[in-house]
Amino acid sequence: MKIVVDAQRLQSELAMLASFTHVEQTGKDGETAVTRVVFTEDDLRARMWLRGLYEEAGLAIREDAVGNVFARWIGSEPELPAVATGSHTDAIPHAGMYDGTVGVLGGLEAIRSLQRAGVKPKRSIELLMFTSEEPTRFGIGCLGSRLLAGVLDASAADQLKDAEGLTLAEVRASAGFTGSLDEVLLPTGYYSAWAELHIEQGPLLERDGIQIGVVTDIAAPASYRIIIEGFGGHAGALLMPDRRDALCAAAEIVLAVERFALATGAIDTVATVGTVKVHPGAVNSVPSRVELALDVRDTDPERRESVMRGVRAVCEELRERRGVSIVEERINADPPAQSDARIVAAIEAACVQHGYSYRRMVSRAYHDSLFMACVAPVAMLFIPCRGGVSHRPDEFASLDAMAAGITVLAETLLHFSAM
Amino acid sequence: MKIVVDAQRLQSELAMLASFTHVEQTGKDGETAVTRVVFTEDDLRARMWLRGLYEEAGLAIREDAVGNVFARWIGSEPELPAVATGSHTDAIPHAGMYDGTVGVLGGLEAIRSLQRAGVKPKRSIELLMFTSEEPTRFGIGCLGSRLLAGVLDASAADQLKDAEGLTLAEVRASAGFTGSLDEVLLPTGYYSAWAELHIEQGPLLERDGIQIGVVTDIAAPASYRIIIEGFGGHAGALLMPDRRDALCAAAEIVLAVERFALATGAIDTVATVGTVKVHPGAVNSVPSRVELALDVRDTDPERRESVMRGVRAVCEELRERRGVSIVEERINADPPAQSDARIVAAIEAACVQHGYSYRRMVSRAYHDSLFMACVAPVAMLFIPCRGGVSHRPDEFASLDAMAAGITVLAETLLHFSAM
Repeated sequence: MKIVVDAQRLQSELAMLASFTHVEQTGKDGETAVTRVVFTEDDLRARMWLRGLYEEAGLAIREDAVGNVFARWIGSEPELPAVATGSHTDAIPHAGMYDGTVGVLGGLEAIRSLQRAGVKPKRSIELLMFTSEEPTRFGIGCLGSRLLAGVLDASAADQLKDAEGLTLAEVRASAGFTGSLDEVLLPTGYYSAWAELHIEQGPLLERDGIQIGVVTDIAAPASYRIIIEGFGGHAGALLMPDRRDALCAAAEIVLAVERFALATGAIDTVATVGTVKVHPGAVNSVPSRVELALDVRDTDPERRESVMRGVRAVCEELRERRGVSIVEERINADPPAQSDARIVAAIEAACVQHGYSYRRMVSRAYHDSLFMACVAPVAMLFIPCRGGVSHRPDEFASLDAMAAGITVLAETLLHFSAM
Repeated sequence: MKIVVDAQRLQSELAMLASFTHVEQTGKDGETAVTRVVFTEDDLRARMWLRGLYEEAGLAIREDAVGNVFARWIGSEPELPAVATGSHTDAIPHAGMYDGTVGVLGGLEAIRSLQRAGVKPKRSIELLMFTSEEPTRFGIGCLGSRLLAGVLDASAADQLKDAEGLTLAEVRASAGFTGSLDEVLLPTGYYSAWAELHIEQGPLLERDGIQIGVVTDIAAPASYRIIIEGFGGHAGALLMPDRRDALCAAAEIVLAVERFALATGAIDTVATVGTVKVHPGAVNSVPSRVELALDVRDTDPERRESVMRGVRAVCEELRERRGVSIVEERINADPPAQSDARIVAAIEAACVQHGYSYRRMVSRAYHDSLFMACVAPVAMLFIPCRGGVSHRPDEFASLDAMAAGITVLAETLLHFSAM
């Protein structure tokens, strides 16, 4: 049986999906900038259009109360737990057209390629589109998969608010998703195997000319807000010995974050301060208050915690030495996930069968698979993206790279659907 | 002859002036927040009201092309260079009601107190209100005094733009100031002596219970924009050894600024990073570009330059070690000013005469007197302000403090008007 991927069709579907965007914009080299936030009109139009593709492929559609969409190719033994793939289609502001979408439209193309090859699956094969993998609207990523896995309390989730003060309960209801979030949780054994296809969002595969990344671990991401309060004043009148400059303390924290991330000696530790808010924020004013957003990830949560212990010790010393107050707020600290050995083996076997080069690697980005790992055996496969660039209009994956990823995904789904 | 200051009248005039504000707001303890930007309707209404006070005091009014207002009490020998005082009445957004205004309304009250005491001055005594001491609208402070002193090119000044893209030429014309800016320059010997009364904007006088600060030097302020370009990426996917994090480089610069300011060993050196702009500014994104605003002041421009030399050496090393590009843009670097010894002596003599405690000190804030020093013998006198706080709604100077300052100012004007 020969699997043939229609990469041209996929490319035109990706372009069509990219046209459902809040602002029509092109990046500096003419690429499409995509902004598609959950439950906006663009998201709802994209969902409608995707439904059409699913129906055309003969898939049975189910939607849950948070808007996760399940499109099922019903197998010959439909009572067995299904095999599944999927990803997300929401996009942060001014993003690209490949992040997440390759896992949804590519997953669909994997199913279609099996259909064209004449496969009759034993277990059903399901394509899942998660609601709001991106944290843009409600401040928390992987909303759909967290609820599917039961790691987010349903009533707390309904009270999440967007920037306009609308609750998730209100927003999903007006988008037509009215059931109770309690019903989103997947029953035990719902899936026998799960594999997600995604662009790498890092430079390793492209740099080393590797076609498929086989994800063995999804790093554990944690994020924190650190608020430093010092004492403000006129940049001319406040003498240096009298200063309790919140920004100088913040600068020491930024460097401590980097230092302790490097100090673990593990390549899998990454830590980033991504935002700095300075109050009052005038050229001639000593900063009185600074707020930092800190992101720390590791495949080993204890090692991740060691970074935070180091940062906290520096904060303690800064409180004393600089006379500032420092408050740390944990936004989230999720557990890492390990891929299932059998699924990893099946992905690697498919690479060998098709002559694709592959390498085991770690996913350091958040993915819905991190949470799916709580309720199913999972693995992920990555394909190279140009320059490791993601979340930007110039995000790009080649037709060949996508075709290879979809071929391997199709083989993997086929393998587990027969078991 | 006895000088009697009507502090109650001054207080009610300060409150009236504070009512010419763009947004009616009160600070957290009920103080008035004042926003009065040059050539806005509020500024023009305030100017109109001030004209009325000047006319009531019998002063002859002249306005120049940039809107500096000269109110002259004509002396018995009007052909002699005048003695003068003054300050500004524009206020940055959400500021207080004492900064600058105490020098204008207090200067007027000094003149009125001399009139009430029956003084007939030999030299004319002039009250000057400068246009746009604050940089809010056109990005450059001391606009009026720079032009009076000839340290800002007239045609360049007319091309300055506000946030809406309006040029100074357009804005001043629609406010009724239509002459050529070339004519703003003061002729040589226009003033025989100049003294400016101002709140300290620092904590020293209040802390030590001193009534009058006699300013011997106005520090030389310089400001710079430092732009760091690194390489952005996903906070999970971009590994630590591959990073060129613009924020980590910026943090080292912030700490270098502080270190080199302390390293001069001089209490008069101050350096501040007051704003940080981070691009793209997301919790899960490695900063690719950071822009810092840096303010360095000193009474000694060579010592000020030594701070910048240290910072530049760190930038050089960072370019190499962190692989970032760093661009420095000088916004301004003004010379320091020294007070005239005779005027300092006269201020001190007035303090002694009235039994006020006084101390020589440095002004580290910008003042119009910095530029007036280019064309006249100058000095400044400071009065305490509560907590050293300025540019905030809770900015405050007591009636007693203002009365003392005005008394000393009146004596000083009297002294030089007779010479």
